[in-house]
Amino acid sequence: MPGRILGHEGVGIVEKTGPGVTAFRPGDRVIISCISACGTCEYCRRGMYSHCTTGGWILGNEIDGTQAEYVRTPHANNSLYKVPDGADEEALVMLSDILPTGFECGVLNGKVQPGNSIAIVGAGGIGLAALLTAQFYAPAEIIMIDLDANRLAAAKRLGATATVNARDGSAAATVMKMTGGRGVDTAIEAVGVPASFITCEDIVAPGGVIANIGVHGVKVDLHLERLWSQNIAITTRLVDTVTLPMLLKTVQARKLDPKQLITHHFKLDHILDAYDTFGRAAETHALKVILEA
Amino acid sequence: MPGRILGHEGVGIVEKTGPGVTAFRPGDRVIISCISACGTCEYCRRGMYSHCTTGGWILGNEIDGTQAEYVRTPHANNSLYKVPDGADEEALVMLSDILPTGFECGVLNGKVQPGNSIAIVGAGGIGLAALLTAQFYAPAEIIMIDLDANRLAAAKRLGATATVNARDGSAAATVMKMTGGRGVDTAIEAVGVPASFITCEDIVAPGGVIANIGVHGVKVDLHLERLWSQNIAITTRLVDTVTLPMLLKTVQARKLDPKQLITHHFKLDHILDAYDTFGRAAETHALKVILEA
Amino acid sequence: MPGRILGHEGVGIVEKTGPGVTAFRPGDRVIISCISACGTCEYCRRGMYSHCTTGGWILGNEIDGTQAEYVRTPHANNSLYKVPDGADEEALVMLSDILPTGFECGVLNGKVQPGNSIAIVGAGGIGLAALLTAQFYAPAEIIMIDLDANRLAAAKRLGATATVNARDGSAAATVMKMTGGRGVDTAIEAVGVPASFITCEDIVAPGGVIANIGVHGVKVDLHLERLWSQNIAITTRLVDTVTLPMLLKTVQARKLDPKQLITHHFKLDHILDAYDTFGRAAETHALKVILEA
Amino acid sequence: MPGRILGHEGVGIVEKTGPGVTAFRPGDRVIISCISACGTCEYCRRGMYSHCTTGGWILGNEIDGTQAEYVRTPHANNSLYKVPDGADEEALVMLSDILPTGFECGVLNGKVQPGNSIAIVGAGGIGLAALLTAQFYAPAEIIMIDLDANRLAAAKRLGATATVNARDGSAAATVMKMTGGRGVDTAIEAVGVPASFITCEDIVAPGGVIANIGVHGVKVDLHLERLWSQNIAITTRLVDTVTLPMLLKTVQARKLDPKQLITHHFKLDHILDAYDTFGRAAETHALKVILEA
Repeated sequence: MPGRILGHEGVGIVEKTGPGVTAFRPGDRVIISCISACGTCEYCRRGMYSHCTTGGWILGNEIDGTQAEYVRTPHANNSLYKVPDGADEEALVMLSDILPTGFECGVLNGKVQPGNSIAIVGAGGIGLAALLTAQFYAPAEIIMIDLDANRLAAAKRLGATATVNARDGSAAATVMKMTGGRGVDTAIEAVGVPASFITCEDIVAPGGVIANIGVHGVKVDLHLERLWSQNIAITTRLVDTVTLPMLLKTVQARKLDPKQLITHHFKLDHILDAYDTFGRAAETHALKVILEA
Repeated sequence: MPGRILGHEGVGIVEKTGPGVTAFRPGDRVIISCISACGTCEYCRRGMYSHCTTGGWILGNEIDGTQAEYVRTPHANNSLYKVPDGADEEALVMLSDILPTGFECGVLNGKVQPGNSIAIVGAGGIGLAALLTAQFYAPAEIIMIDLDANRLAAAKRLGATATVNARDGSAAATVMKMTGGRGVDTAIEAVGVPASFITCEDIVAPGGVIANIGVHGVKVDLHLERLWSQNIAITTRLVDTVTLPMLLKTVQARKLDPKQLITHHFKLDHILDAYDTFGRAAETHALKVILEA
Repeated sequence: MPGRILGHEGVGIVEKTGPGVTAFRPGDRVIISCISACGTCEYCRRGMYSHCTTGGWILGNEIDGTQAEYVRTPHANNSLYKVPDGADEEALVMLSDILPTGFECGVLNGKVQPGNSIAIVGAGGIGLAALLTAQFYAPAEIIMIDLDANRLAAAKRLGATATVNARDGSAAATVMKMTGGRGVDTAIEAVGVPASFITCEDIVAPGGVIANIGVHGVKVDLHLERLWSQNIAITTRLVDTVTLPMLLKTVQARKLDPKQLITHHFKLDHILDAYDTFGRAAETHALKVILEA
Repeated sequence: MPGRILGHEGVGIVEKTGPGVTAFRPGDRVIISCISACGTCEYCRRGMYSHCTTGGWILGNEIDGTQAEYVRTPHANNSLYKVPDGADEEALVMLSDILPTGFECGVLNGKVQPGNSIAIVGAGGIGLAALLTAQFYAPAEIIMIDLDANRLAAAKRLGATATVNARDGSAAATVMKMTGGRGVDTAIEAVGVPASFITCEDIVAPGGVIANIGVHGVKVDLHLERLWSQNIAITTRLVDTVTLPMLLKTVQARKLDPKQLITHHFKLDHILDAYDTFGRAAETHALKVILEA
């Protein structure tokens, strides 16, 4: 496979196809979506590939993922996407999971609109993917919130209009001040812990949206005693990758440069080094790490 | 005033108008929205009258309400609605607050659609208002959940396809069974306590909506450790009454009979009896109580 | 096949399946959509099955249709729908084409809403399908326009709130009078000739929609010299049948009775009689004619 | 008035206010919308200010416009917008009419989306306003079509990805070639003559939108014999200026530079010279011409 990534993302070359695979032939270069979709069940028909009754998030979760020389992809017809001739395959690895995730769960669910104010809590890879794709909609303000100064500096380079270091516990107060006491139209949670979700509750403006991307391990407090009257929406989503073709067009048109998320490259043989680098991200400044065959 | 209600709802006759009131004249019969809207501020322009910067929910909250012989209505141009000739004024009292609340916060936010399954937790006046207006959209199933057998019987008469008594603590399990383990597309919370909100979390299907109507006094647990991947939305809303004109058309066209919510009548002089009756609703089966001048 | 219809609609029993067909087995009872969808191409992914690059409207158009003892269905996985146990198969024949057509092209595209005024020009089978499914959304007024008094009488029985005979050329003027000079929010064209489309242009209110269903053979005059400033939308659509599962739920829930559209039954052997009856619809009052094996 | 423009656009200083004007005081610097809105009638409540029953497009149409030293603005509360401190007033003159027109009638109605292909027929001021605001949504392709090479060059500078000179009659064929035979997702008509509308009919892709901005003087041919099955929408709109506050935020955030549309300045005393310059636009390359007091 020409390119993979730590996680379950990948671009590869079709080696052989099973019965019923009509959309691809051996030799095709393809993006492997992190989500497998039959295309036929009720959820697939609604565009909710993540909840495909015989697929969904199974690669690297219920079955082996793409950190391998060969991968068997279920539901290939609806789960692979042709790499356009001449495209930069390394960039397209980012379309397998991280960019659709930031875009669908954060930006689309968050209803980012021209002129709006948005805040993204968490400037890791997924938060930065939301940052990059939020700019499709020309928001007036994109405030990034994180504990790590390096990540905030990266966010600034990638288009954040302001950054807030949450280390001293006053992030919400700072955002409210920045927005004249009004709060933000869209608050994107890109961490997955109670504190960052609570920050979103504290900064969302009346009529706004909290779009959760983070994978949470425990419950959070929802302050309905205050929010019941605020006309807000809270959304959750496991990425469907239904926007993969749209994102591909934006990459081809140079409206989006996914390679900004790639910081390191390793040969597949050195995967342990790759994990080590990724594991010490605060130190190595790793965002996304590419594995090559 | 020809009709009022316990709460801040009312229909009346314009006695005199202040400067700047161009839409009404003395003698006009009008519905008094529970929400006052200037029509000019940013929130009013977005249809969020509930957050009007100089209005919103002020009648019966920040200033005196409509349980009086005379009422001074702020922002009259945008907060009163003409009663059509020959209309049943008593029915229209229900358009002041309860029906727009059930409809906007429950049905519209909940995205009720033809063929869908919905559940409404709470069969009090507001839950029944959601029940009545949900039927505009021809859902396949409307399951009402409550602790009171009388209210559930009323729900059945008003169009519920099934009822569940939550007394034994197995309401969520029962709804899951009724829906083949899938859950409901829309779960409407019409009580305002943690237990009923948790029931909604337990029964919402992937891709579904929890539409909160209840006024909550304390926080609730949001089980993001399970819901983060369920592609759901949770909405809150203080009624805007922007749909009052639409609802008026449905009443005039006999698509909606608001009088089904009225159980008792009292003279304004006997308001204490009215409160007593309303206070013992379990016993008196009171839903909405009309006060007459 | 248990039921078919004049046209390309049908319900049948799966006899055998080709390679790649995983969703059905011999013996399954299925509705055959009039539209064949691969489920994989760009249009299918957008829900535009009508424009499937290897399917679309091919049955009875580019290849033989369902007026036969045996039918070979391309893209079976995405083009057949299981008949629920115990369902009335004859009713479900109507879900193959006519009801999705009236619903998708007329009602959904026309954005029918509670309390709104709609007019349907053409009270043939397709106009009546729009009439039946428009009632999912509780419009205040549904005005049916046709030249045939029998069809208008049928429309009245099926839920029209008013009927207008267009024979004397004053249909548009009559509708404007009925709506207080305002026009209708939704005008559905269900004939396919210039005169009926022009009627829609004449009666659509500012902010309204003209939803075209009719199959047109010639161009029509679009009066942009008047309509440019009227904030209207005109929509066209070849049915996608993406709402077939939703419609199936409404039938099962008894929110929709498709059999109201069926007027005659013939054995497949007597298909010429069936065509004769359908061809003299003005006289025989034929709407939809069922053929039985 | 600090700035006005040929047409009915303007920015000024409030001199005095009538009864009922609560939102502004003498001395306030304001943008004067080209549309007057009461904020109270049914159309205003739906955001259709253009059809306000006592306002709409009346300035410079039914009553005198803003090419004057003093202007009386009806419905001031809902028709003026405060100029933020320190803002460039000349830029904001463009928010009075031309930018909301291009944005609302062309870009919003046209549903421009990231990655999509759009074509704009007409590279005059209004077409360029659509071009500038379309870029809020990161479309992959923006093809400008015009007869004038200078205007096409201007379009290229303002962000068009390709230009097509329609002089030889093959514009539609060229666009189809550019899009691989598929056509564009959005075709914006910004001229107002039959030929340019027909071009839009010829280039719109299945599932696409033709968004009309042009003011038409005669009817056009609508080729329903071909388009009935193409799942398209055609929209018309008189600008509502409901997006003026949103556009103001994008200007303040430097996502939009309206001054790119301004080519000439004249003193109000020299208004005839201004008209002469504007009248010979092909020669003078005039787009928008500012008049100063």
